[in-house]
Amino acid sequence: MRLADLPTPCLVLERGILQRNLDAMARAVARHGVTLRPHMKTAKSMDVARLALANPLGPSQGITVSTLAEAEYFFGHGITDILYAVGITPQKLEQVTQLNAAGAVITVLTDDADMAGLIAEHAHPPRALVEVDCGEHRGGVQPEDPALLDLAMRLGRSFAGVLTHAGQSYLGRSVADMQAMARGECAAAVDAATRLRAAGLDCPIVSMGSSPTALYAEALDGITELRAGVYMLGDLFQAEIGTHALDDIAVTVLTSVIGRRPAEGRVLVDAGGLALSKDRSTEAAPHDWAYGRVLDIGGQPSLGHTLVRRAYQEHGVVELDPALPAPDLPIGAKLRIAPNHVCMTAAAHDRYFVVDGTDTVTAIWPRINGW
Amino acid sequence: MRLADLPTPCLVLERGILQRNLDAMARAVARHGVTLRPHMKTAKSMDVARLALANPLGPSQGITVSTLAEAEYFFGHGITDILYAVGITPQKLEQVTQLNAAGAVITVLTDDADMAGLIAEHAHPPRALVEVDCGEHRGGVQPEDPALLDLAMRLGRSFAGVLTHAGQSYLGRSVADMQAMARGECAAAVDAATRLRAAGLDCPIVSMGSSPTALYAEALDGITELRAGVYMLGDLFQAEIGTHALDDIAVTVLTSVIGRRPAEGRVLVDAGGLALSKDRSTEAAPHDWAYGRVLDIGGQPSLGHTLVRRAYQEHGVVELDPALPAPDLPIGAKLRIAPNHVCMTAAAHDRYFVVDGTDTVTAIWPRINGW
Repeated sequence: MRLADLPTPCLVLERGILQRNLDAMARAVARHGVTLRPHMKTAKSMDVARLALANPLGPSQGITVSTLAEAEYFFGHGITDILYAVGITPQKLEQVTQLNAAGAVITVLTDDADMAGLIAEHAHPPRALVEVDCGEHRGGVQPEDPALLDLAMRLGRSFAGVLTHAGQSYLGRSVADMQAMARGECAAAVDAATRLRAAGLDCPIVSMGSSPTALYAEALDGITELRAGVYMLGDLFQAEIGTHALDDIAVTVLTSVIGRRPAEGRVLVDAGGLALSKDRSTEAAPHDWAYGRVLDIGGQPSLGHTLVRRAYQEHGVVELDPALPAPDLPIGAKLRIAPNHVCMTAAAHDRYFVVDGTDTVTAIWPRINGW
Repeated sequence: MRLADLPTPCLVLERGILQRNLDAMARAVARHGVTLRPHMKTAKSMDVARLALANPLGPSQGITVSTLAEAEYFFGHGITDILYAVGITPQKLEQVTQLNAAGAVITVLTDDADMAGLIAEHAHPPRALVEVDCGEHRGGVQPEDPALLDLAMRLGRSFAGVLTHAGQSYLGRSVADMQAMARGECAAAVDAATRLRAAGLDCPIVSMGSSPTALYAEALDGITELRAGVYMLGDLFQAEIGTHALDDIAVTVLTSVIGRRPAEGRVLVDAGGLALSKDRSTEAAPHDWAYGRVLDIGGQPSLGHTLVRRAYQEHGVVELDPALPAPDLPIGAKLRIAPNHVCMTAAAHDRYFVVDGTDTVTAIWPRINGW
């Protein structure tokens, strides 16, 4: 099967780029002697998880997930050590304990005193981390807040450590920014662990993570594990903030030309808001890629600065680079679109068509979507 | 099963509101004596299609779809008369003709001379419509463009009529705006048909449609069928532009509270950018609903002006109405979120949990997503 034969729109995964991204993260993590706990919320694929875990510089055992559907899927494929890194609820605690009863070892997360009590009182309590806010101000307690100790105490024997997520690293725009964010995240996590230990609690897990801080941290003393996910596949936003280069984007949407307006310098393609997502994160980036960067079927930027300017449900309006001669794009011609935010784009698709630098599809890897 | 027991996030469909919306469209269409060809791109459900086709004022036979996955699904459930209303490509023409060989009667769409030739030359050519641009400037030829006649001639015996889509009606903000858009769309479609007939061609189908123009058209002389889809379910954007009222939104996302920040007047919920979509269409509407309007578990606006202010992959940041006393929302409490753009939001979910004004789930209706 060749790319030109695939039904469109669909997801194409370049295996060589994926491996390069995995290797870059493996080197970054190995510098610090910490464990990588890959976050599977981006790739949502067992085939990718196998590669992400098989780090030759220090294999990982456990993964991070963002939904219980992911937890169930990866457990069903043999991964037992799973961190569910979204605040747990009473109902989801029941789902987790059922999976744990079947052999999984799912660790949960909370920043809520009542919920901590419910976890501790459960007949089969899972391990739990306390979420610490390192500056994103989405969830978590401040490292200096007395609530931190209260939460850990309430969790009792379930308490296993602390977790931070530097979502604010997405506001960084330079290596110096990312290094500063990583220092701040590391300090928040380690400060929290230090306070808990000073109070006599064991705090074996000190988990931090985001792709930018994992890649750019200069020192991680006191951190036990790093979580990151988007680094595997990459996207335009991550390229804009410097996590990787533009040609490190491993996933693109294959699309077909469905209409031509040569006088207006544009074509219509069959990748619209559903196939690409309506994510507009690059709006706030140094360069705004609209709804995506258009590449040729080989994944190369031979079309210059060609963008998906508008996205309807199933139609994308592609503006061709006016500085280049009009390309030959008959109806049915195939293009590839690098996404703004790969977590959002990939979630509309149920599989990856895997290639490796050629137009031959070497594998089809399923994804687990939904909840 | 009750709403409070459902895993979150998930889609809730209020059957009574759906039926009210179907009835409103049935009355609107019946005024003109035209046929409604429901567009299933929004609901993507056979259960909804059955209700949409069973219009007591004049049942419909055929549907409209936006993907060949929808075409295959609905044909598999017994619907044969299907209009695939997105520009056809050579590869998709093969898929269509295979379904037609199996008994479907799929009509295709084009505005491209080369593609029209390929359709006509096919061993088993499907019926085809020529897309006419009525002012949206996305696809289609102008009604007065000589290319219109050329396309119809090239299609030969495949030629079955013309089609317009007034996507620009989404820019309307009043009944008068919608009436003007409908007049413009109707005029473009009928002008095109008139020109083709004057040239000696038969033009049996004159198809127009968008929910706003279908609902607000004052006269549709010369139109043979109306296409509309979003009217079935409704959303905040359609409410803002006046297609329906806020309490006509039939689909909401059920979500659970996963974090609390009372000092900041907000809670975190487990419906983020994936469960809600990143659609921000109400940004351009009279009222900007951010990432969605938050209702109580009964679907009522008892929380006042409470919004999803930010949407991460699996986290939604809910800003509570500061004018109301802080509601009692422990971890696990359930809320419902009315979406900005239901076509985008629903596509992240694989089923509807159907209720009818109570908290009892009376049915589960699957959806067909993807391509």
